[in-house]
Amino acid sequence: MLAHQRSYPRTVTSTALLTDHYELTMVQAALGSGTAHRRSVFELFPRRLPEGRRYGVVAGVGRALDAIEQFRFDDAAIALLDGVVNDQTRDFLASYRFSGDVWGYPEGEAYFPYSPLVIVEGTFAEAVVLETLLLSIYNHDSAIASAASRMTMAAGDRPCIEMGSRRTHEEAAVASARAAYLAGFASTSNLAARQRYGVPSAGTSAHSFTLLHDTEADAFRAQVTSLGSGTTLLVDTYDVREAVQAAVEIAGPGLGAVRLDSGDLGVLAHRVRKQLDDLGATKTRILVTSDLDEYAIAALAAAPVDGFGVGTQLVTGSGHPTCGFVYKLVAREDDGGQMVSVAKKSVDKISIGGRKFAMRRLDAHGVAEAEVVGVGTPPDNDGNDRSLLVELVRDGAVVGREPLAEARSRHAAVRAELPWSVQQMSKGEPVIPTVHVGNVEGPVRG
Amino acid sequence: MLAHQRSYPRTVTSTALLTDHYELTMVQAALGSGTAHRRSVFELFPRRLPEGRRYGVVAGVGRALDAIEQFRFDDAAIALLDGVVNDQTRDFLASYRFSGDVWGYPEGEAYFPYSPLVIVEGTFAEAVVLETLLLSIYNHDSAIASAASRMTMAAGDRPCIEMGSRRTHEEAAVASARAAYLAGFASTSNLAARQRYGVPSAGTSAHSFTLLHDTEADAFRAQVTSLGSGTTLLVDTYDVREAVQAAVEIAGPGLGAVRLDSGDLGVLAHRVRKQLDDLGATKTRILVTSDLDEYAIAALAAAPVDGFGVGTQLVTGSGHPTCGFVYKLVAREDDGGQMVSVAKKSVDKISIGGRKFAMRRLDAHGVAEAEVVGVGTPPDNDGNDRSLLVELVRDGAVVGREPLAEARSRHAAVRAELPWSVQQMSKGEPVIPTVHVGNVEGPVRG
Repeated sequence: MLAHQRSYPRTVTSTALLTDHYELTMVQAALGSGTAHRRSVFELFPRRLPEGRRYGVVAGVGRALDAIEQFRFDDAAIALLDGVVNDQTRDFLASYRFSGDVWGYPEGEAYFPYSPLVIVEGTFAEAVVLETLLLSIYNHDSAIASAASRMTMAAGDRPCIEMGSRRTHEEAAVASARAAYLAGFASTSNLAARQRYGVPSAGTSAHSFTLLHDTEADAFRAQVTSLGSGTTLLVDTYDVREAVQAAVEIAGPGLGAVRLDSGDLGVLAHRVRKQLDDLGATKTRILVTSDLDEYAIAALAAAPVDGFGVGTQLVTGSGHPTCGFVYKLVAREDDGGQMVSVAKKSVDKISIGGRKFAMRRLDAHGVAEAEVVGVGTPPDNDGNDRSLLVELVRDGAVVGREPLAEARSRHAAVRAELPWSVQQMSKGEPVIPTVHVGNVEGPVRG
Repeated sequence: MLAHQRSYPRTVTSTALLTDHYELTMVQAALGSGTAHRRSVFELFPRRLPEGRRYGVVAGVGRALDAIEQFRFDDAAIALLDGVVNDQTRDFLASYRFSGDVWGYPEGEAYFPYSPLVIVEGTFAEAVVLETLLLSIYNHDSAIASAASRMTMAAGDRPCIEMGSRRTHEEAAVASARAAYLAGFASTSNLAARQRYGVPSAGTSAHSFTLLHDTEADAFRAQVTSLGSGTTLLVDTYDVREAVQAAVEIAGPGLGAVRLDSGDLGVLAHRVRKQLDDLGATKTRILVTSDLDEYAIAALAAAPVDGFGVGTQLVTGSGHPTCGFVYKLVAREDDGGQMVSVAKKSVDKISIGGRKFAMRRLDAHGVAEAEVVGVGTPPDNDGNDRSLLVELVRDGAVVGREPLAEARSRHAAVRAELPWSVQQMSKGEPVIPTVHVGNVEGPVRG
């Protein structure tokens, strides 16, 4: 039973087992009771932002669409489910293919408490089994994008480089690079993200490269000879001042950049800038790395730093590694074929029944004022509101796929539209309130 | 360039691009300078435990061995590297296969600051390119196992069920289920972990299942009819007291379990236990879920709870989603073919040069006293010390693979050997000190 199966090679042609056991036993029970095919609406949403955060960023949409498309129970999966669910259920799953509709916030959009990020409509059985995978993708990718957006905002015009692969699961690393890019990062260290998503990749060198050589100067010469003087030399293996001197001697004043990875970065950056300028290397950039987060980046605003390499804090969501999105049944068909709103009754975990609409209300200057969420007919649009839900899947076919660059552009535009207070790094309330309008229904019992 | 490439289907036969860009440009520069083939020793180690943690748990070893074995640059990877590295480097990578040796702590072992968790020996080029992937796997899996171990310790004899898949990246979810299992969790919700690693899977049902049906009683009947009276019924969708009453009426006193997912779990558990007992359902177990972590589990020690479902806090490492392991060159061949110790010189990021040994020193009663780490010849073993490094890869061939069940047994034994203070959930120092012995060398410059 517990024999070790190798992780690799592994052919990931199906995403269907990236799923909780109970999704399938629920399908079994619903097939038994005749409710599995009731038309149902599920909503993926946050009850709140991470503590103190002022906005969130939607990411993972493109990956989710890919995952839905490949959500099939292949022979190996069906074989595994012997002992998990009965034959009727395995037959149902063997022919499973999502045939419903999905609407959702486009990738890169901002979100706020109760933003209805994804609305999945289909039969109960076909919609419920997507729960785990959709939540995994959205919860992870949006956590990373939300942190990344604050970092790129703090960095202003100076590029941020994502280099956190080593500090997170190897596949989460690829998704993190993608999420960071759409939230404004300039590049990634991750080669798989370059391969799969076309994210520009970049890199400098490690201390091991310097230590490999008999002297630091040998290492610099090796790197410059091979990679050109436009390369980035790591100058803190031994003594920064000596290293900078040697770097410019070897590469010439056209040296691309130096990297600082330890010490008091603000002070060091000033010293190194002066030293570089004195050596005539006035165009040589200074990159800093070393446990940076949005606060450290903001603190370096006045330092002569030309770029930020961000690792651990990016891939761990800067204190908030997951978003806490949930996926709840909000409406379903009743006995008579009518759709009825449903919601759990709980004091500490509030859901709002019914299929939602969502709009970003903008003032006359185009500044966001409110996240308007409701059930039923949307209020009149005064011309300054943006409808937030776009069609992603129609009758089981993906229609909402877009290039990552579009999500990246969208995020930049959307962030610029938020009130100025979004720039504050300190903890606070969401920068716009969520306003519930329309026929918001409370919990109903069928 | 930025066209969207689909995430799925994706054939994961190679792990080589789960790698930082700079690993490969360093190989290029080292090939150029003639240092690429210098014999080198890299060490993967923690500089510290996460703040306040008293021990860490090694996990990811089996996954890392699989990943090393499949670390090949296939045609698609080589094609991608056009523009990243030169032809000489691409030729080198195309025929890359790790041919060196790896020693390391076995999976499930405890670790402390400066424990040399993995020692990789090979040429510089073949060893440096494994950096990113090894760190990704160890940093993630050990973070999860370290949190999981504290949770299972707090839970004592009562089973913990891993159900965090939805709150982390979909592949990190599978690795998390594996890591949690080896650290004592009884089962997982994740079906892919069942498939790949044979981790027992389990599940109950969601609120959506109750809401799907016209009444809660209908939902309970559907579940019991399909899954038997041994199933677990979720009793907090509307009113817990009414639900427990209905659950026992429908399933009979042989009902397997009820699940509580909201509210004041300690108080509720007492009430529900009494109600179940009064109804004759004295064997019906009470499972609790809802943002549990090791502290919440410990706080429920006196409550009549029979099992814990743990999600978010498990997959996010209970506040410490990554371990901060680093991978450093500690020794390499010099001009004359002699191995020399090397280390970066930095006040805030200490490394110790040289190839290490490591032992757990035990007292006469078999209680751990110290983590003994040193360079050179190990001290005499008084019969109570356990050598910590085992052979994992010899001449490029994996020799350290073992069933996951062995790592799980090892962890239980190793944890039992630690001083009693390991049971304290409060923040503190590591439960045993790391003692540096032998010829510990400071930073050297080649």
